[in-house]
Parts: sequence; structure tokens; C-alpha cells
Amino acid sequence: VRAADAGPYAPATLAVAREIQERALAGSGAFDFVESLTVRVGPRMAGTPAARAGHDWAMARFKELGLANVRVEPFTVEGWERGLESAAILSPAPQHLHVTALGYSVATPADGVTGAIARFDTLDDLLSAPDGSLEGKIAFVDKKMARLQDGGGYGQAVVARGRGPSEAARKGALALLIRSIGTDSHRFPHTGTTRYSPDVAAIPAAALSNPDADQLNRLLALGGPVTVRLTLASQAMGPLSDANVMGEIRGRELPEEIVVIAAHLDSWDLGTGALDDGAGVGIVLAAARILKSLPQPPRRTIRFILFGAEELGLVGARAYAAARAGGPSGSKERHQIGTEADFGAGPVITFNADVRPEARPVIDAIGRALSPLGIVPGRGPSSGGPDIGPLATAFGMATAGLGLDGTDYFDYHHTADDTLDKVDPRKLDQSVAAFASFAWLAAESPVGFSPVERTRE
Amino acid sequence: VRAADAGPYAPATLAVAREIQERALAGSGAFDFVESLTVRVGPRMAGTPAARAGHDWAMARFKELGLANVRVEPFTVEGWERGLESAAILSPAPQHLHVTALGYSVATPADGVTGAIARFDTLDDLLSAPDGSLEGKIAFVDKKMARLQDGGGYGQAVVARGRGPSEAARKGALALLIRSIGTDSHRFPHTGTTRYSPDVAAIPAAALSNPDADQLNRLLALGGPVTVRLTLASQAMGPLSDANVMGEIRGRELPEEIVVIAAHLDSWDLGTGALDDGAGVGIVLAAARILKSLPQPPRRTIRFILFGAEELGLVGARAYAAARAGGPSGSKERHQIGTEADFGAGPVITFNADVRPEARPVIDAIGRALSPLGIVPGRGPSSGGPDIGPLATAFGMATAGLGLDGTDYFDYHHTADDTLDKVDPRKLDQSVAAFASFAWLAAESPVGFSPVERTRE
Ligand SMILES: [Zn+2]
Ligand SMILES: [Zn+2]
Ligand SMILES: [Zn+2]
Ligand SMILES: [Zn+2]
Repeated sequence: VRAADAGPYAPATLAVAREIQERALAGSGAFDFVESLTVRVGPRMAGTPAARAGHDWAMARFKELGLANVRVEPFTVEGWERGLESAAILSPAPQHLHVTALGYSVATPADGVTGAIARFDTLDDLLSAPDGSLEGKIAFVDKKMARLQDGGGYGQAVVARGRGPSEAARKGALALLIRSIGTDSHRFPHTGTTRYSPDVAAIPAAALSNPDADQLNRLLALGGPVTVRLTLASQAMGPLSDANVMGEIRGRELPEEIVVIAAHLDSWDLGTGALDDGAGVGIVLAAARILKSLPQPPRRTIRFILFGAEELGLVGARAYAAARAGGPSGSKERHQIGTEADFGAGPVITFNADVRPEARPVIDAIGRALSPLGIVPGRGPSSGGPDIGPLATAFGMATAGLGLDGTDYFDYHHTADDTLDKVDPRKLDQSVAAFASFAWLAAESPVGFSPVERTRE
Repeated sequence: VRAADAGPYAPATLAVAREIQERALAGSGAFDFVESLTVRVGPRMAGTPAARAGHDWAMARFKELGLANVRVEPFTVEGWERGLESAAILSPAPQHLHVTALGYSVATPADGVTGAIARFDTLDDLLSAPDGSLEGKIAFVDKKMARLQDGGGYGQAVVARGRGPSEAARKGALALLIRSIGTDSHRFPHTGTTRYSPDVAAIPAAALSNPDADQLNRLLALGGPVTVRLTLASQAMGPLSDANVMGEIRGRELPEEIVVIAAHLDSWDLGTGALDDGAGVGIVLAAARILKSLPQPPRRTIRFILFGAEELGLVGARAYAAARAGGPSGSKERHQIGTEADFGAGPVITFNADVRPEARPVIDAIGRALSPLGIVPGRGPSSGGPDIGPLATAFGMATAGLGLDGTDYFDYHHTADDTLDKVDPRKLDQSVAAFASFAWLAAESPVGFSPVERTRE
């Protein structure tokens, strides 16, 4: 059993990891970063002045921390603005519905679209509806999201948000309503992007809060038609400028080998983006502060990246990857491993990774170093987080998942209720302990983690 | 100890009370009434077509139950309509605020009122501000409501809602914002009526959700001015027709002696009024069904009253009292005792009453009969509920309080989130058991409860 303690790291290196954890747990200051961002900047939709204020805020923080190569890397994103939105049941019992437009939804006419509801349990059921059967109707996909600690209910439910509008349009629908992709029972609708197919007309699309979806079901259960009016004033804003913001601690031995610790700086417009992803920003900055204060830098470079425009389709991460994949050959950079904190305010409960086989013992050793924080091995490999995907694909980069406890995450995700009061400073400190000690150990690894052979994601 | 069991009621009468309780606990159907009202009628602001739909709904239910003297008693109420409402911090960090107009608030100009925030801990602090010191400003009273099981935090906080606008206007304020009178930390503002003093200009008044009030405090803590724009499109609708709806079980011996079991039928416009006061309506109707099904009616008449326009200032209850107090002398009616269910969906946890001294032993006996439901004596006398007040004053009527557990009530009270999913059918059944067995025993009492001598309320 003691042999399991013998591993790839020297005792002094593991002692630094424990020191990092203890300092984070004693008070990492991550909450203060989340507070500052959500108060001084507030909501920060990609492409807006508030997003630019976020870039300035992040630059100032990185510089205060004394990081190297602090910079803003601009890119272009297709902007979108929500505008006023409302919905109401007109008959049989007039009442307001709480809705919010899906990201990139087209507007309705100024006086809305009005139609009878055609309800489907799932997107698959809508796909089975006869062609033309939704003419003049508002389709309603009522898929309920399951509450799972690891967010495992999201994938099943979110297909209706992405593909639903175009599939409903193919059947002739005037508009699409979906039950919110969310686990709460409060009257907050959950937004999130949709993607129109180019081969069919774009129809307005919005999410109903869970209590409103329940109420719509009760009215449908009365047996007669239920007529709803939906009014959205959203508009496409054309190409806008946005940016990733980053800084780094240069490696003392292998400065061209990069360990990526990421979060995303943009948020939806409805809340202040405290959980999504202010918490991740706080974790990254607090981890950077502890790592920067160590007596000596790690072997490899740790790059702290705050991506832009994640919510609008990983636009910043894709731009980051595109700028470097097969790019100017002057750079010798090799992205070794990356992880992103983008699942709320913690604590971290699982750890897993997708690395080349030679690095498995290192990952196992990191797992042992994380276990005092209550972290256990996660199942299967990890994608590392949404913005990590484009980097992993472009660079063959290894990925590590520090799995945050998401039991309540989808109660608030993409709603107006994603505000600072939902963030627990102590849980955030534990997450900083995990991310920072992971970063240290990954950057100190005696072997590299990449390249990872993958079937294309 | 056994002597305590000897009391004013015959064993057979107490056995009926137990039978009533057991039937209610086995499934009273109260939830189905709440569901039907909140789905088929929905929100039902006094004076609106929806309120009239509510009257029709209630008439139909009373008739189905086979009650006697089922009737609608019309009265006039000053109508008010909310309209669109919005607020935003303009500087130092632009962001939306979730607000809702206080009931009877005047509108702002179409482009809103804009001013720097002048914050006060309490209304008393605002009263201490120098005259004219709020010129050009938006006053903000930030009083936090305490979470108490009996709702004891409401009174302290609600003064800012009632008196705040006129007091702020006296100091020159453009508008008043208050922290919501509510115990949740979700972005739902809590509405409720305000009352303008006739001697000062009426200024627009709205409530901020608790997270928005917190955020405003954080921005104020930065030290600079915080500029807010408030836009309300509310309007006075003039005198409108509304009504109380009632039915009764005529007493077999003392039909002119009335026991009142009440709730209010109207609701605010934001939610569906499931807890406030759909739950009370469900309790009253389910209690009526059980009581109507007994082998013989009780000695006294039990009158089930669903008051209108409670939310706009007990307008229905005042009309009911005014129509009877010193009214047409043809009536020999004597209102003996009354209680109202208007504090959510239960369970009932306390029982107390304000009766003439001769009836104290009867109240004690009723308390013993309620104790198997987990109900203990409440402290002090009880007002009986908001709509009971005008009747108690007008008739010298005794009042009984069946105190509902309000721990969570002010999480939802007067918000859009007051919807059916917040109602627990089992707790509602327990409440029906309490109200129905109380009604039976009160109507069977060997002695009358009134008149009660009171200093004017
Ligand atoms: Zn995110
Ligand atoms: Zn997101
Ligand atoms: Zn009420
Ligand atoms: Zn109320």
C-alpha cells in the first residue's frame, strides 16, 4: 500500500502542493474577485461595452498580480441583443408567462406571434410530427431536465434549445417555446444559444420558466386549445469586437510548454454572471495569485486565460485556437494540458484527465494529491471544460477535469437569478485549492501530457 | 389531569371533530381547489375581468357543495393597473434592476425618472433626513425583513411600503425604492399597496428584489454616486366593480349566530396567487365540503366568505362590515366569531382567540381538540386574519387565529413566484383539518363568543 505513495513527484514538490491548498483554504480571496467583477462590471454580454469593461477589469487584475505577457487578444463575434420580451396565455385563462429569448433568436413582429400550442414531450417527438402539422401553431417542447450532481441532465435537454427552432420551422411552426433547461421551480426562464439551420426560415424561439411550463401543461390538460402570444424584440447586432484576456507565469525550465487554467469572462445579460462564470474567473485569479507567490516558478508556463464570448458559441476559444493552430511557425509553444472552471462555485468533487498513456501515473499522483480536499476520481476522460475543447482539438492538448459540484448549478444557470448571493466563499476557496495545486503539479510534471490521439470531437 | 378533559363539549361532539380531522387528513381535496382556481382563473386582481371569472368560479364551487344562501355581494374598488416597469443602474456600472411598482403607485414619465440614490436603513432614518435633502434624488429604504415562523418580521418592514412614498416626497425625492418586504434571495420584487398622504405630491414607488437591493448596496459602497433610472407605466383605473362571494351551512338551533370562515379570492397580478390566497380559498372550500357532509348541521350557522379586493386594502371586508353594521334592522344576525386562512398553505401550528371571558373555557377545549394535529396555543389574542379585522371592529365579533407556519411564506408573498408548485397538498390537508374542526366546535359551542370589548384597532 505504501508503494502507492511512491510516485513521479519529489516530496518537496508535493509539499508545495499541500502548502498551496492550505493557503487557499485559509482564504483565497476568490470571492472578492467575483464580487468585484459582478459589481463593477455587472452583466457582460460578448461584444458590448460591458464586455470591454470586463477586459479592462481583467487586465488590471492580471497586472496587479504581476503576471507576465498580460494581453488582450481581440476577435470578432456576431453580436445579439435581447430587447423586450413577453408572452401571455390569451385563452382559456389569460395570464402572463415568464419567457426569455434563446440567444440569437430572431424577433417577432412588434405585435407578437399568436397561435395555439402544439406540445411535445421531447424534440424527437416533434421530429415525428407530420410535415406541415404545425402550421399556424406555436410548438412547445416540454423536456424536463434531470438534477444530477455532474450536470449529466443537461445534454439530453439542451438539444431542444439548439435544434428545436429549425426543426419546428420545418413542420410549419410560427415559433418555438421550450421548457427551460434548468432544475429550479422558480419563474426564471433560462436562456442559452440556439442555432438556426440555413435551409429553413428562422422562427422566434424562447424558453419558459419551469413553473410556466407546468402551468401551460395544466391548461392543455383541460382539453381545449391554448392560445399564446409571444413577443420578442431581439436583434442581431452584426460583427462586434470582443477579446480573450490572459497572463502567465513563465516556466523556469520549459517555458514553451503551456498549462492552461481557464474560465470565461463573458456572461449572459440576464443575471450578473456570478456562477457562470464569475466564479470561474475568481478561481483562476485567486489560483494565479497563490502560484505567483511561490518561492520559485514551476517548470512549465502556466497560462491563465479568460475567454470571451463563450456563451455565444466558444467564439473566443475558437479564435485562440485558430490563431495558433498551424499558425506563425515562429512560436515553439506546445499546449500540454488545460482545464477550465465553468460549472459554478464549487466545491471540486472529482478529478479526471485525458492524457497520453505515458502520463497516466502523473495523473494518478495528482489525484492522490487532491484527495485531501475530498476529491475522488471522476468517471471516464474529461473534456476539460467548454473552452478547452477547441484547444484540445487544435493542439492535441491533454485535458483535465476538476469536476465541480453542480447539484444546484442549473437552478441559476443562464437566468436573472445568477447573482453573487448564490456564491459560497468557502466552497470557492476549496475550488481554488484544487485548481491551483493541480496547476502546480501539472506544470512540475516530469513527463509531458500531450499530444493526445483523439477521434475528432 | 383527567379533569382537564372534562369540558364544555359532549363526547359525541368531540368525536365529530376527530372524524372531521381524520377525513381531512386522508385527503381533503383542498389542493384541487387551489389548482382549479389558479389554472382556470389565474391571477385575479380586484376589479378586473379575471376577478369576475373568480367570482363565477367561486359561485359554481359553493353551489356544487350544496351550500345555502350562495351569493355575490358587489362593492366598488379603486382599480389600478401595473403596466410595464423597469429600472436600471446607469452608473457607475450599467445593469438592470428587478423592480415592481407598489400597488397604487403613480407612473413615471414615459422616459422614467433618473436620480442619484439616497439610501436609508429604515423609514425612521429617512424621516430624520433634513427637509429638501432628497431634491432630485431617488430615496432607497433598505430595511431587511426578518424570517420568523409567525410572520413577525412583516410589520417592522412594511411601514416603509405604506408611508415611505409620501415621506420621501416630503423631503423632495423624485421617487422611492424600497427593499422588498420578503425573505428570499431571488430576483423577484414583492409588491403590495402603498398609501399616499393627500397633503404631498404622489411620487412613483417600487420595490427592488433582495439581490438587487444587495447589489445596489455594493455599488453604493464603492463611494461614488449611483444613478438609477426607474420607469413605471402604472395607472389608476377609477372605481371598478368587485365582490365578495359567500355561502353557508345554516345552523340547526341558532341560525342567526354566525361563525365566519374566510379567505380572500383576489390576488396580485404578478403570480397566480396560489399561496396568497388560493391556499386559503382551498382550505375554506374543502372545510365546507366536509362540514356540509356531516349527518347534522351544527347549532350555529357557518358562513364561508371569500372576500374580494383584500390586496387593495381590505375593501371587500370593509364593504361587508359597512353593509351590516348598524344596517337594516330587519336582520337579527349576530357574528359570533371569525377566522381567515391567509398565510399560505400550512400546516396550522398555533391556535389562539380573542373572545369574551365567558367563552375562554370553550376556546381551551377547542385548543385541546386541535392538539392531535400538532397545534399548540399561540401567544396573546389573535386578530383572526386581515379581512376579519373590519368585522371584529364593526360587530364586536370574537376572533380566532389558526396560525399557519409562515417560515417560507414571505419567500413568495406578492411575487411572480407565488405559483402552485409552492403548495404542498399534505400540509394543506392538515390546515383543512384544523379549520373545519374549529368551525364545527365553534358552531357547537354551548356559549357565545361575542361581543368582545376592544380598544379600537
Ligand atoms: Zn459558462
Ligand atoms: Zn453559460
Ligand atoms: Zn393575502
Ligand atoms: Zn397579499
